[in-house]
Amino acid sequence: MKIPAVKGTRDFYPPQMAVRNFIIDGWKAASRRSGFEEYDGPIFEHLMMYELKSGQEIAEQLFSLTDRGGRQLAIRPEMTPTLARMVNQQIHSLPRPIKWFSVPRLCRAERPQKGRLREFFQWNLDIIGAEDVLADAEVIFCAIDYLRSVGLTANDIAVRISSRRMLGALLEEAGVAAEQLPSVYAVLDKKAKVPQETYEAMLKEILPDEKVRDRVLHLMNCRSLEEVESKAALTGESRETLEELRRLFSLLEVMSIGEFAQFDIGVVRGLAYYTGVVFEIYDRGASLRALCGGGRYDNLLRDFGGPPLTATGMGMGDCVLEILLREKGLLKEEDLPTRKLDYYVVFAAAELAEEAIRLTAQIRLAGFSCDFSYKGGTLGRQLKQADQAGAAKAVILGEEYASGKLIVKEMKTGRQQILDRQEFSASLKP
Amino acid sequence: MKIPAVKGTRDFYPPQMAVRNFIIDGWKAASRRSGFEEYDGPIFEHLMMYELKSGQEIAEQLFSLTDRGGRQLAIRPEMTPTLARMVNQQIHSLPRPIKWFSVPRLCRAERPQKGRLREFFQWNLDIIGAEDVLADAEVIFCAIDYLRSVGLTANDIAVRISSRRMLGALLEEAGVAAEQLPSVYAVLDKKAKVPQETYEAMLKEILPDEKVRDRVLHLMNCRSLEEVESKAALTGESRETLEELRRLFSLLEVMSIGEFAQFDIGVVRGLAYYTGVVFEIYDRGASLRALCGGGRYDNLLRDFGGPPLTATGMGMGDCVLEILLREKGLLKEEDLPTRKLDYYVVFAAAELAEEAIRLTAQIRLAGFSCDFSYKGGTLGRQLKQADQAGAAKAVILGEEYASGKLIVKEMKTGRQQILDRQEFSASLKP
Repeated sequence: MKIPAVKGTRDFYPPQMAVRNFIIDGWKAASRRSGFEEYDGPIFEHLMMYELKSGQEIAEQLFSLTDRGGRQLAIRPEMTPTLARMVNQQIHSLPRPIKWFSVPRLCRAERPQKGRLREFFQWNLDIIGAEDVLADAEVIFCAIDYLRSVGLTANDIAVRISSRRMLGALLEEAGVAAEQLPSVYAVLDKKAKVPQETYEAMLKEILPDEKVRDRVLHLMNCRSLEEVESKAALTGESRETLEELRRLFSLLEVMSIGEFAQFDIGVVRGLAYYTGVVFEIYDRGASLRALCGGGRYDNLLRDFGGPPLTATGMGMGDCVLEILLREKGLLKEEDLPTRKLDYYVVFAAAELAEEAIRLTAQIRLAGFSCDFSYKGGTLGRQLKQADQAGAAKAVILGEEYASGKLIVKEMKTGRQQILDRQEFSASLKP
Repeated sequence: MKIPAVKGTRDFYPPQMAVRNFIIDGWKAASRRSGFEEYDGPIFEHLMMYELKSGQEIAEQLFSLTDRGGRQLAIRPEMTPTLARMVNQQIHSLPRPIKWFSVPRLCRAERPQKGRLREFFQWNLDIIGAEDVLADAEVIFCAIDYLRSVGLTANDIAVRISSRRMLGALLEEAGVAAEQLPSVYAVLDKKAKVPQETYEAMLKEILPDEKVRDRVLHLMNCRSLEEVESKAALTGESRETLEELRRLFSLLEVMSIGEFAQFDIGVVRGLAYYTGVVFEIYDRGASLRALCGGGRYDNLLRDFGGPPLTATGMGMGDCVLEILLREKGLLKEEDLPTRKLDYYVVFAAAELAEEAIRLTAQIRLAGFSCDFSYKGGTLGRQLKQADQAGAAKAVILGEEYASGKLIVKEMKTGRQQILDRQEFSASLKP
């Protein structure tokens, strides 16, 4: 009987696996360039960890299970709760700031659609214990450094930046009550995602006072920090957070990625736990979902039973990224290291098969990749296989082998060289 | 509130993650050396896939879940059913032989004990569509090549090899009925795992005829292929499979790993689906469970709705391997690439912090790993941090920086060099 794969999951055949490795290896390399260290947790955690602290949207999308001991578990839908748990467990021995990254496999039981699957990989970067906006700049820098490294430019992508804390202060100054802020954030976050009428109707429902509502709409139309400064009557808190954002933009200039950055008061982020700087990276065409989102979350560790410790981080999924890289022609599958081989051993006659096996083993044990044909066949057929396998060089065992000689052929140029068996072995020494 | 990790799972803090990466990167490199290509599937599959085809032991250890659509799913406890599903799906377009590897995360709801956890990583190698025992030899070679590459020798480990098909033929010749074979295999597989009395009692229960039982016990005491040949009356099938095993040992000699291999008629393997050559790799001390097990399974693809296509493969878990590597002193954590940095930028005064940030960004964008201190502090303190971060070189911004010069210090030797800012930038070009 034939059993299909589960809906919304992916099978990674070697060509798709090469793409996944290309993406994940790039994430890892960029993280290490910026001094982040890799960590990981289990694929599942206690269910209540997510019920308590994730956004409503995530909690509804859990794959939950019960183990034989009756424990309620869930496959991880995001990495941050695991990070908070792990940091809290070793809070007294970890040197700070903690600069960690991870590339977890995550699962969410949502309806599969373009750029959203029920199972995906997400690059997570976090810095814990550094209050300065320099830490936010480092997270943004590392994400942009990766995107640059795969060929995206400031013409392709932008990081849109705002501050939850500044927005909160400005909203309060505009007359929104503090306890209303979470539901106002939820509506503001929907702005780009629903029709304008729906957006205004939702806002009217939670902000019935027309004066307050008008001030909020006015504020949300600001296109620059200067406009915020001139339009709003800044108090201590909003002035301070505005200066903090200024410093962030200036640091991104110093890091020479200023051209990627822009202020966008509309970036609010859906998740409940953000408390300061928030950002999203979009393709300039803006036909796709955000590539990446992040920001500062100052209460999460405390909420998980740890000390109050400031943190900032970001997450980037593989699905939207892969779509964008393909659209921009930056994923050339023939260039990916799918099955590149250093050598392919070819033999002219069946009697030489054993020698081909011996030589293949010797090449592999010397640290090079090498393959050969189980079935043999004509030299032409085997050389074609060598080519299909992506071999850089073919080692040909022909008539000369009786007198201890073999031919090394460079597959790209066709250049051939006759070598003594011993000379060849010596060439394998590193 | 503090929520713990789920029992039997592991948290990979950066030092543990470095060990995991060391193991998995080694598996991947060895696979590629032998011409295997990487694939992967989803973390869960339809539950019935495992209920139908896995061994009883595995089916009892499933983490099962129900999704919102009412589908019964299970987190993968092994990779082979996913492999069979994926190969069957593209059976007409995949060139054969298929030589694939994977390093899946697997979950089994068993009681955690030494070398067995509820969540682990397993290296899988499979060759599909090659009937010749040469494919079995390649799988064994690749596993041994990996173990050699991390420093294990033939004094440390051995691969014990037998053949289910040969054993089946010999057992039938000894008077065991064909339909009894699976339950006899199950008992024989327990030999090394239970006391001798229990073993004999179990055997008595399924083989009440004393003559038959004696012949079986006699057979299972054979220590070499020669002994099998002299003790048993070989028929066509057992003769043929014995010659096949001889050829396998000879191929392992040709591949120059013969010293690792030994015949062991007691290697039966627990899983139901093996049909030919079977093998297990053990530490010679034999204090641990098998490091690795595998063999030929000729019916699995057909059982999953595909064509009858021969296959051979192996699985190696990370838990027992890590214990053995530690016991042998082959896991030197200080040598692992945990947080090696190319550069660490150090600045003598707070006014130079911005220049340190600028330079750090420049070094990273040039493709090197680099970090710096957020807080600054004395040069001595920062150099100590550079050392703790595993930096190869420190770049020091001091008084000379006013006249465009900086110091590059090799951390190991202490050797210092004064360079122009431009000279240094130029040195970053690849």
